[in-house]
Amino acid sequence: MSDIPAFVPGLEGIVAARTRLSSVDGQAGQLIIAGFPVEELAGKASFEETLYLLWHDALPNAEQLRNLKQELAAERALPPATIALLREAAAGKVADMDALRMGASTLSISSSGAGASDDAHRDAVTLVARFPTIVAAYRRLLAGDEPVAPRRDLDHAANYLYMLSGVEPSAERARGLETYLNTVSDHGLNASTFTARVIISTQSDMISAIVGAIGALKGPLHGGAPGPALDMVFDIGEASKAEAYLRAKLARGERLMGFGHRVYKVRDPRAEVLSAAAERMYQADGDMRLYELTREVERTAVALLAEHKPGRNLQTNVEFYTALLLHGLGLSTDVFTPTFAIGRVAGWTAHCFEQLDNNRIFRPQSLYTGTKDRRYTPLEER
Amino acid sequence: MSDIPAFVPGLEGIVAARTRLSSVDGQAGQLIIAGFPVEELAGKASFEETLYLLWHDALPNAEQLRNLKQELAAERALPPATIALLREAAAGKVADMDALRMGASTLSISSSGAGASDDAHRDAVTLVARFPTIVAAYRRLLAGDEPVAPRRDLDHAANYLYMLSGVEPSAERARGLETYLNTVSDHGLNASTFTARVIISTQSDMISAIVGAIGALKGPLHGGAPGPALDMVFDIGEASKAEAYLRAKLARGERLMGFGHRVYKVRDPRAEVLSAAAERMYQADGDMRLYELTREVERTAVALLAEHKPGRNLQTNVEFYTALLLHGLGLSTDVFTPTFAIGRVAGWTAHCFEQLDNNRIFRPQSLYTGTKDRRYTPLEER
Repeated sequence: MSDIPAFVPGLEGIVAARTRLSSVDGQAGQLIIAGFPVEELAGKASFEETLYLLWHDALPNAEQLRNLKQELAAERALPPATIALLREAAAGKVADMDALRMGASTLSISSSGAGASDDAHRDAVTLVARFPTIVAAYRRLLAGDEPVAPRRDLDHAANYLYMLSGVEPSAERARGLETYLNTVSDHGLNASTFTARVIISTQSDMISAIVGAIGALKGPLHGGAPGPALDMVFDIGEASKAEAYLRAKLARGERLMGFGHRVYKVRDPRAEVLSAAAERMYQADGDMRLYELTREVERTAVALLAEHKPGRNLQTNVEFYTALLLHGLGLSTDVFTPTFAIGRVAGWTAHCFEQLDNNRIFRPQSLYTGTKDRRYTPLEER
Repeated sequence: MSDIPAFVPGLEGIVAARTRLSSVDGQAGQLIIAGFPVEELAGKASFEETLYLLWHDALPNAEQLRNLKQELAAERALPPATIALLREAAAGKVADMDALRMGASTLSISSSGAGASDDAHRDAVTLVARFPTIVAAYRRLLAGDEPVAPRRDLDHAANYLYMLSGVEPSAERARGLETYLNTVSDHGLNASTFTARVIISTQSDMISAIVGAIGALKGPLHGGAPGPALDMVFDIGEASKAEAYLRAKLARGERLMGFGHRVYKVRDPRAEVLSAAAERMYQADGDMRLYELTREVERTAVALLAEHKPGRNLQTNVEFYTALLLHGLGLSTDVFTPTFAIGRVAGWTAHCFEQLDNNRIFRPQSLYTGTKDRRYTPLEER
């Protein structure tokens, strides 16, 4: 029948939202975040500035920034029910992303949860503020340590590093993490952001929407798992071995993790930002060996990929330098995806506000492929 | 630019999935569930049969049904961590749907959560089995009572009623609830089912997908709130007052809850099934007054709507008789939407299996409406 529209697998190429939050141009290698090229914003703004920018479409002035920082700092501590649940989850060795989803879901206990728009702002502050507390507390509980209570006098990124390690980080380390969080704060209508918009489109509440987004980000196809890229660098060990190692890997038909991206056909603009941030951070820490080895592996890999897969133009993606940067910050690979969520929740919440501002419930069609006239037969006749 | 596709608000008219699970024909007033017209299936099958049908595309034979019932019964009890969290939620007077979302999220504690397909089946059994336990336990905790432990010797629907009240229900009451659960078990690609499919499309796990779907079902635009329809019947009180009451309401420009549906342009086929189930149940209980008043209100409302809004053909929707049936079962309006979820989780999990069988990650496009060349200005210049 000609009036039935065609099935669009994965909704590829369908425009499901208008947004002022970010623009991804994979052909040009350009990522715009709320009007700023990512290279212009990520290394300069604090995470709180980026959050304000996404929520309000402008950078904050001094007073606005102070207020937002205070609001966030005041919401960091977890209620006892959340800590108790994380303790049970740690005893059950639940994955970090599941623990984040569970912990975030419990935040309804201190929220009215009615879904009204004034609640949406308060819930968004609570979610953004507590993501780092949940992730850090859970990581410590899993390791058999007690959680480190958040400090109100530290900024968002610095406080996360403090809660993970119990040690106040250097300014360069906090800056390195902020750059990362800014870089991943929004990225078009990926599956997790889309999930948040679909849920809030029913006029459900902010916590429900963000909990759904965490569930989507957990999936390996979402692409939030930068661990394996760095494992390869460690395997290689020294620059002189890079070429032989990579050639052998390609000859075996194996994929090089950290290269090539579904969207970006040139170098991922985030790779540049993160590599510069990693360079500054490793420099401040006084040991450039891993940074230089990683650069060398990148150069060799890109050259060999051009030779081995001509015409594909496989370039470094965001995972490669994410892994280097987060490793330098002392993060274990288990918290790489949760740390991605700590940055991306800025975009998720902003997309929810945007959806609520001009809402239409998402309800696409499905195409029925079954029969239509089955008859019920009694159990004894089956 | 002509190569940018147009924005499709709410994805209306876009086919986002192929499914053998259900077909909704609003013009004809037809709902097919896994090959069965809803009128053929809902009043005859047990809930476990419908669940098996959705999961396996065939009604079970005696052995298959026995196995599924045993699997479900064995999974009903809640782990202590889930009960403890529900207790905290009750102290905070969290809404029933938020409590269901939190409770369902904790089920990862006893799951590996890795997202492998063998886990998906086990997680689906756990979710379906424990939804009633969570809802009933939470309702009792909110009322200051202790939860009633599930019984393995009762079927799914009967055990839910037992856990809510502490009293084993009559066969007619269990049958009435089963008919309702079957009736709402699946309904095309609504927002919550779509949410579940988007989350699982990242190869995330079943629990994450269903937790997201609960969040979407909570939203008032989803249409899972049948309470107000019956409130109107109670307000009217006796049949002789129906016409004057409804005329006054329409004259004030108020909407009649329980009539009209976004999809169904004739009588919702589910209304017929539910009205028959309600009739049987009220008859068995020996008091037909509320049933007859409700029928009379329906007749009057449909006639007045035809007069007042000619050409709209506003007919009774599923909410009207859902409210009558669930009220007759002793359920308070607070658990109407959670009880809808207890039925719909059959469809949600089946859609997740179907998505995993032939998966493509959902990643639609967004259209960027912002600027592209903002420059970062230092804080003191803002």
